[in-house]
Amino acid sequence: MAKTQNKELKAKNSKLQTPLVGIIMGSDSDLKIMQDAALMLKEFAVPFELTIVSAHRTPKRMVKYASTAVERGLKVIIAGAGGAAHLPGMIASLTTLPVIGVPIKSSNSIDGWDSVLSILQMPNGVPVATVALNAAKNAGIIAAQIIGTSDETISKKISDYKIQLEKSVMDKVKSISEEWQNNFDEK
Amino acid sequence: MAKTQNKELKAKNSKLQTPLVGIIMGSDSDLKIMQDAALMLKEFAVPFELTIVSAHRTPKRMVKYASTAVERGLKVIIAGAGGAAHLPGMIASLTTLPVIGVPIKSSNSIDGWDSVLSILQMPNGVPVATVALNAAKNAGIIAAQIIGTSDETISKKISDYKIQLEKSVMDKVKSISEEWQNNFDEK
Amino acid sequence: MAKTQNKELKAKNSKLQTPLVGIIMGSDSDLKIMQDAALMLKEFAVPFELTIVSAHRTPKRMVKYASTAVERGLKVIIAGAGGAAHLPGMIASLTTLPVIGVPIKSSNSIDGWDSVLSILQMPNGVPVATVALNAAKNAGIIAAQIIGTSDETISKKISDYKIQLEKSVMDKVKSISEEWQNNFDEK
Amino acid sequence: MAKTQNKELKAKNSKLQTPLVGIIMGSDSDLKIMQDAALMLKEFAVPFELTIVSAHRTPKRMVKYASTAVERGLKVIIAGAGGAAHLPGMIASLTTLPVIGVPIKSSNSIDGWDSVLSILQMPNGVPVATVALNAAKNAGIIAAQIIGTSDETISKKISDYKIQLEKSVMDKVKSISEEWQNNFDEK
Amino acid sequence: MAKTQNKELKAKNSKLQTPLVGIIMGSDSDLKIMQDAALMLKEFAVPFELTIVSAHRTPKRMVKYASTAVERGLKVIIAGAGGAAHLPGMIASLTTLPVIGVPIKSSNSIDGWDSVLSILQMPNGVPVATVALNAAKNAGIIAAQIIGTSDETISKKISDYKIQLEKSVMDKVKSISEEWQNNFDEK
Amino acid sequence: MAKTQNKELKAKNSKLQTPLVGIIMGSDSDLKIMQDAALMLKEFAVPFELTIVSAHRTPKRMVKYASTAVERGLKVIIAGAGGAAHLPGMIASLTTLPVIGVPIKSSNSIDGWDSVLSILQMPNGVPVATVALNAAKNAGIIAAQIIGTSDETISKKISDYKIQLEKSVMDKVKSISEEWQNNFDEK
Amino acid sequence: MAKTQNKELKAKNSKLQTPLVGIIMGSDSDLKIMQDAALMLKEFAVPFELTIVSAHRTPKRMVKYASTAVERGLKVIIAGAGGAAHLPGMIASLTTLPVIGVPIKSSNSIDGWDSVLSILQMPNGVPVATVALNAAKNAGIIAAQIIGTSDETISKKISDYKIQLEKSVMDKVKSISEEWQNNFDEK
Amino acid sequence: MAKTQNKELKAKNSKLQTPLVGIIMGSDSDLKIMQDAALMLKEFAVPFELTIVSAHRTPKRMVKYASTAVERGLKVIIAGAGGAAHLPGMIASLTTLPVIGVPIKSSNSIDGWDSVLSILQMPNGVPVATVALNAAKNAGIIAAQIIGTSDETISKKISDYKIQLEKSVMDKVKSISEEWQNNFDEK
Repeated sequence: MAKTQNKELKAKNSKLQTPLVGIIMGSDSDLKIMQDAALMLKEFAVPFELTIVSAHRTPKRMVKYASTAVERGLKVIIAGAGGAAHLPGMIASLTTLPVIGVPIKSSNSIDGWDSVLSILQMPNGVPVATVALNAAKNAGIIAAQIIGTSDETISKKISDYKIQLEKSVMDKVKSISEEWQNNFDEK
Repeated sequence: MAKTQNKELKAKNSKLQTPLVGIIMGSDSDLKIMQDAALMLKEFAVPFELTIVSAHRTPKRMVKYASTAVERGLKVIIAGAGGAAHLPGMIASLTTLPVIGVPIKSSNSIDGWDSVLSILQMPNGVPVATVALNAAKNAGIIAAQIIGTSDETISKKISDYKIQLEKSVMDKVKSISEEWQNNFDEK
Repeated sequence: MAKTQNKELKAKNSKLQTPLVGIIMGSDSDLKIMQDAALMLKEFAVPFELTIVSAHRTPKRMVKYASTAVERGLKVIIAGAGGAAHLPGMIASLTTLPVIGVPIKSSNSIDGWDSVLSILQMPNGVPVATVALNAAKNAGIIAAQIIGTSDETISKKISDYKIQLEKSVMDKVKSISEEWQNNFDEK
Repeated sequence: MAKTQNKELKAKNSKLQTPLVGIIMGSDSDLKIMQDAALMLKEFAVPFELTIVSAHRTPKRMVKYASTAVERGLKVIIAGAGGAAHLPGMIASLTTLPVIGVPIKSSNSIDGWDSVLSILQMPNGVPVATVALNAAKNAGIIAAQIIGTSDETISKKISDYKIQLEKSVMDKVKSISEEWQNNFDEK
Repeated sequence: MAKTQNKELKAKNSKLQTPLVGIIMGSDSDLKIMQDAALMLKEFAVPFELTIVSAHRTPKRMVKYASTAVERGLKVIIAGAGGAAHLPGMIASLTTLPVIGVPIKSSNSIDGWDSVLSILQMPNGVPVATVALNAAKNAGIIAAQIIGTSDETISKKISDYKIQLEKSVMDKVKSISEEWQNNFDEK
Repeated sequence: MAKTQNKELKAKNSKLQTPLVGIIMGSDSDLKIMQDAALMLKEFAVPFELTIVSAHRTPKRMVKYASTAVERGLKVIIAGAGGAAHLPGMIASLTTLPVIGVPIKSSNSIDGWDSVLSILQMPNGVPVATVALNAAKNAGIIAAQIIGTSDETISKKISDYKIQLEKSVMDKVKSISEEWQNNFDEK
Repeated sequence: MAKTQNKELKAKNSKLQTPLVGIIMGSDSDLKIMQDAALMLKEFAVPFELTIVSAHRTPKRMVKYASTAVERGLKVIIAGAGGAAHLPGMIASLTTLPVIGVPIKSSNSIDGWDSVLSILQMPNGVPVATVALNAAKNAGIIAAQIIGTSDETISKKISDYKIQLEKSVMDKVKSISEEWQNNFDEK
Repeated sequence: MAKTQNKELKAKNSKLQTPLVGIIMGSDSDLKIMQDAALMLKEFAVPFELTIVSAHRTPKRMVKYASTAVERGLKVIIAGAGGAAHLPGMIASLTTLPVIGVPIKSSNSIDGWDSVLSILQMPNGVPVATVALNAAKNAGIIAAQIIGTSDETISKKISDYKIQLEKSVMDKVKSISEEWQNNFDEK
């Protein structure tokens, strides 16, 4: 099912647009989390690519991915990893692009603390823009916000998305007011 | 089922009494926790209202809710949220009423630590009266205690409630003394 | 020096007003933190008393203090303690009044975590309204807010205090704008 | 089933022996953990009693239990509680007997940290001998060891128990050596 | 001294350029950390503004700052705060711009954990790009990287900066090789 | 100074009484903490011995110390250690006596967490009665309480000590009531 | 099934080769984790033995195991334990061989923190080479790497293993590129 | 002073022996910790080299260092780093040699937790043998133990070192027995 959805997504996506955002992750087991970044970018119509780059099992692939990112046209890289999560920070050391890190609570993680700290606590000079544990969706939004700083079509879509977020809350407000007294909205 | 219970609760509650306590939460997924505050206030016959106010998705609704709380007759606000939980603290910044914060262990929380710390650790000048993780029931009790400082009917009900708490323990004492030696009570 | 300040404070305070707020703490070494609650109540002209009640060294004094609090006219109790901090919770078990707990980072505390958790994590039925680590000042504000729910003079003072808080920020805004570009306020 | 086992246990135990160890806990939901202390004492033939004493819901019962413990013939008290766990420490404040604390990972606990810290971190002068999270069995052993300091029959039983512990390991050693090479024991 | 340096900095900066980056912080006590973001942007020649915006003491100023950020020409906002740090997340809720959060280990923080978690753990839909504790310098670099995605002059400066970082390491390599054997570089 | 005090203490102590309590520690740097246990036992007139036994540097000494403890007349062993603190647990594995563990925040400890957890979290069957971080004084009290279960002279001294603890609080109560209003005690 | 696999493994292994690596663990319940070390060594054709040695239940067996390790021909010892995990550190205190510690998240562990800290935080002079929580496989690899420092056949196998690791990532890269756009590899 | 000591050390060391151990660290500020590894290897007469290799500032130097380590004759690599410490894990991904990681509590670290977790929690397949926080001395010992598995001269020195450790404890035992009663050793 997820597979079908993604295939359809790929079909829609593969217009041979040059990707502006590279989404990478340390393992295919991270895909179920990281695809939220992809779906978010899809919603914002930001072209992206997605693959596996393992800091620990394919270090030279990682060096090449990061080193060629600018020349290949990428504007932002989203990197997700869990446990002793070195991928986002190492990518950041190898490119001048902004790198967004997604700490993943993977099976070998101690409640996510290792993932968060080994992505967030980068030394001065080599930052990773870190999102919440497992929050790949938010990584997708930040990537779109970055592209949106120079592309009004995208920034307009983010603005619409925020309006939608608000509307979905107001729908819930209405729904639960059928059961619970709510003088604030009934006034 | 929960729904039916709440409807009944609303029916009993909606006597057009002015609510003294406002119960708000960041998301409808928090309702299963936060309804314990409502049920407790119902038991103490303290009129309340309950709705959703999201700090992050409806910030202007939040400002309006807090800013109008005094004039609408509220005496206490109970606010529940999880993860980076800003609702209780932001409400506290916008009203002079006492604000009770309920840290919720929501799905995006790291074992509840983020919820607890982002509600509890308010700076000097802008307090939030924080209860235990998921302890919405206790938030309801504190709200009733506050109302009870100037309403003897309510403070009498809290006194009765504490007697009931003690009695329920004594019932258990008796029940397990059928199986386990207990010289203390048999004396 | 602190002593002189407190003596003067006592002189002003000892108008034989019945205290509405009781401030207690486990040890005299907590006084340097807990006096912030007293100074805040002084500023709000809420009459209070302050003494030492140790849960672990004077348990019977603690029982008596809590049990007689209502009849002595107290409306709120502020209790501060550090380490395995049992005072606030035990007071809450012995009175129907709202109890505000101040976790103190005392010399025997593990970075304050023990103080916070042993005050905050009270079971259902017996709440403690907890403030941030060492935030006795905020405990004083919550106590005043509670009194203010039925005393407009006090609630007006809290309102003034919040205006003052805002003003002190705006003074700082002006001060640092002499050195740093600030188009927002210069507009 | 557990019930039957306990009834049988009570039948065996209720020889009207004066209990030497008092086992108490904050709630009947703690019984599934705390009964391990009872079963251990049973195995060592140390007479004990077991009941519920809630620090927060029955504080005066708690004061009476601790204050009369010496005169009732108890030598050791084992107290278990979870969350903001005040029972062991408060009992310790009210008796000169050694008090063994069992931190319980109850439903309202943050992974057991609150239970551990609010029992362990007692101030100087009022100790609680704390065991591992949920380790009621070990509390039973310490109680027996204490009784054993002046009762050679008991200390002999503890000695036998340790031999049994060792033997059970050696049985496992033999069992897994059927599958795994083990030159150490085969020598 | 710091003051003089900053005045000079302001003198250089106040060319009436429209700021592209807004640097805000909850308190003037955060300035000693947050000025590192300003100095970094200065080095990259990215125009910025800097002021105090307190979520808890000036909530309406905060709403206005965030709501007008786009129209005032800002492309990125850097927000620093400590303890229950709500400023970055609330700004993010009120603007479509990318928001970079700097957790500050302020005097009321529990070793920085509260600052980190209350900035990082934002819910889906409202991200904050978080940097390491106190790492305002890295926030400045990310802001420049974001501007650099559509401004080659800036991205070139970031590239130069990375080369400089590497060079400073190689200088240290040379320096310590005078005292320690180093066959790798001597080869 | 400490040295002189201890020498005097030894002089008083070395009446060739058989020690009932053995105090051991992993390193002489732990002595400044562990001497509190000795001073407490001195106050209770419980004969003790004190030496260094390192689990990691003198493992065979440790085996011998624990194995011969019963025959040498010891009734209780107090063991203090820091970091990966194995001494208390290993002693417990080698004797049937009750073992009291003192977690020490030594220079190689991560804020004391390692010391606490590696002493407290013993497996079922091999308990260590653990006290608070650095709380050697409390270890001394528990040892005396254990001896006191079969020695009324000692248990009387503990009772006197508790009265003294209470009295010292009441002295402080009186002292601070000169400066702060205290209606509770003035009644 | 696991049993059959292990028997087969033993059959293959029991060529009466002298084991170079000793794998020990505190309890047979640790075997499901620790067998990963064995399987890894099997893959690298490093002869090993595996048994149970409990620090707390069989301390004298532990002393003997460690003390005879060198003379029995072992080159490395892998020790796994959970909770207050003393086995690896105690083995290290009793042998000159390198000791690899595997922290196990056993049933009595607080999320693994106790296991990690009580193995990792060894004092100066007595190291344990610690791997990630439950990472027995990595312990097997380190053991093989150590043997490989003087055995080229083994080091060649490790080299092949790393190539295999990389290849397995590249297979996944190919597999997910059927669904997701990937310009990096398609170039 | 330290400088002079190191120069002398270099003088002794630079006999053009091929280093067997490479000691690297992320920054020269780590040298004050990491030199303990060097001094330990010096004591064991294991030839080593020492330099700075920054994962984040000199990633390509890091790749080259690790990739050429085997051919340059190294047998073990010791890598120290703090904060989001990626150096040890990345080196491990790029070589078949055993890699020992030293977590350093550097100025940008959150009490060392980030350093420990980002070095220790490596995924299956790519281990780092981790020592305690700041325990570079222990890293030196493990490196010597590894060399010692195939070099009896070295393993003999380690054996002597352990005897020396024990002797230094026994000296302390004697020293404090002048002040404190010690029946164990006096027997």
